[in-house]
Amino acid sequence: MIEVTSLTNETVKETVKLQQKKYREQTGLFLIEGFKPVEEAVLYGVQIQKVFCVNPEKLNIKFNSNAEIIKTNEPILKKISTTETPPAVVAIGVQKQNTNSWLKAAKKVILLENIKDAGNLGTILRSASAFGIDGVILFGDTVDLYNPKCVRASVGNLWKNNILLVKNIDELKDLLKDFTKIGTLPKSDNSVYLSSFDFPEKSCVFFGSEADGLSDDLKRITDTNVTIEMKNSVESLNLGISAGIIMYEMRVL
Amino acid sequence: MIEVTSLTNETVKETVKLQQKKYREQTGLFLIEGFKPVEEAVLYGVQIQKVFCVNPEKLNIKFNSNAEIIKTNEPILKKISTTETPPAVVAIGVQKQNTNSWLKAAKKVILLENIKDAGNLGTILRSASAFGIDGVILFGDTVDLYNPKCVRASVGNLWKNNILLVKNIDELKDLLKDFTKIGTLPKSDNSVYLSSFDFPEKSCVFFGSEADGLSDDLKRITDTNVTIEMKNSVESLNLGISAGIIMYEMRVL
Repeated sequence: MIEVTSLTNETVKETVKLQQKKYREQTGLFLIEGFKPVEEAVLYGVQIQKVFCVNPEKLNIKFNSNAEIIKTNEPILKKISTTETPPAVVAIGVQKQNTNSWLKAAKKVILLENIKDAGNLGTILRSASAFGIDGVILFGDTVDLYNPKCVRASVGNLWKNNILLVKNIDELKDLLKDFTKIGTLPKSDNSVYLSSFDFPEKSCVFFGSEADGLSDDLKRITDTNVTIEMKNSVESLNLGISAGIIMYEMRVL
Repeated sequence: MIEVTSLTNETVKETVKLQQKKYREQTGLFLIEGFKPVEEAVLYGVQIQKVFCVNPEKLNIKFNSNAEIIKTNEPILKKISTTETPPAVVAIGVQKQNTNSWLKAAKKVILLENIKDAGNLGTILRSASAFGIDGVILFGDTVDLYNPKCVRASVGNLWKNNILLVKNIDELKDLLKDFTKIGTLPKSDNSVYLSSFDFPEKSCVFFGSEADGLSDDLKRITDTNVTIEMKNSVESLNLGISAGIIMYEMRVL
């Protein structure tokens, strides 16, 4: 076991850099903060590179054998973490590969376009796991999935979900050729109300960003649209809420 | 019209204080940030005390006659607001009185216990308006409703909702004597699944805090319980999502 007690230690400095998207992308690594999230990550097969902990002897988690366990102190945990109160454990995890092999057998999928709010994304991943959604496609310009805020808001569900990042509309069309593509619209000009909507066996529901709704590119490839019934006096729902309600109705338990 | 251009002006200093709960409680005032929220507040009858704006001449909003319009500059708007980018308008509003007269005619009500996250509260108020919920009771130790983050997340729905703050369990029992009191439980040991639950005509659904769930005090006074169906592998949903799904099922449009 290594012991690191200096705030200016190189490993500490490298770890702090992972708070930035740029370094997460360069290295393919990310931060996992707190005992429970680290435990769940390991349980769901996330490879761990390093673990920082004040009392690693008491950490009852079975890490991959090449994980480096580092005994450290509170000031360092505070420095490398992004939460207000420093967590008891911080680990560096290896990001999962972006694969689409799961799409073949998938039946219920959602797509989030240009999602910018990390907390919203994490919450949606948590709901997706809860309702047995097979996977989540992130399309366009998306907040970094491995943003610590997203990791936290997903409450361990980042590693339970199939997640696919797609940038290109032609690639998307090809990937979804067997799916009924369902747009979500705020008002039902051209759509079916959720309570009378039957989700086809292979469904992919598209959610636009909170600020702009669905892009024309995505609207053009939808087969049908669904709208959540609501009062006219309210313009729209929070994106996480809309996605939560629709996934509850699509649920496969 | 008054013009204020100095960051050390007394009115500016007093306004900045309203970012703190203590001063909001002392004065009964709160901040409304952004053109749209100010417009909606006025539309729903919120009394405005002061309005800060770079170009008040162009502000096409009909304020109450005693509202003080203040021509100002961007640095001041930045100083008095809590958003990263300063809004075009910041107003000081008068908090609504906490009345329970609406409960008599109300049919669908929700209760939030010890809710701590201002963003979550704002989102729930937005969903409550969308689904025609008659009002929201905040029970116990609750984040300040007039926290700027809550005002923002409610997207104007803070003034559309009936909201009642209750601290005392006996007072609560008395207020809800005509309602069927429905607890929400994470697992259905002692409850009915949402999809087979019929909400009685006068229903009040209780939501516990994310950290602790429903308190024993509240559990003791429920008549029945409801559970949202979900995968066993997921511990719980985000509170805003649970409340959103249940309010969608309770909706009165």
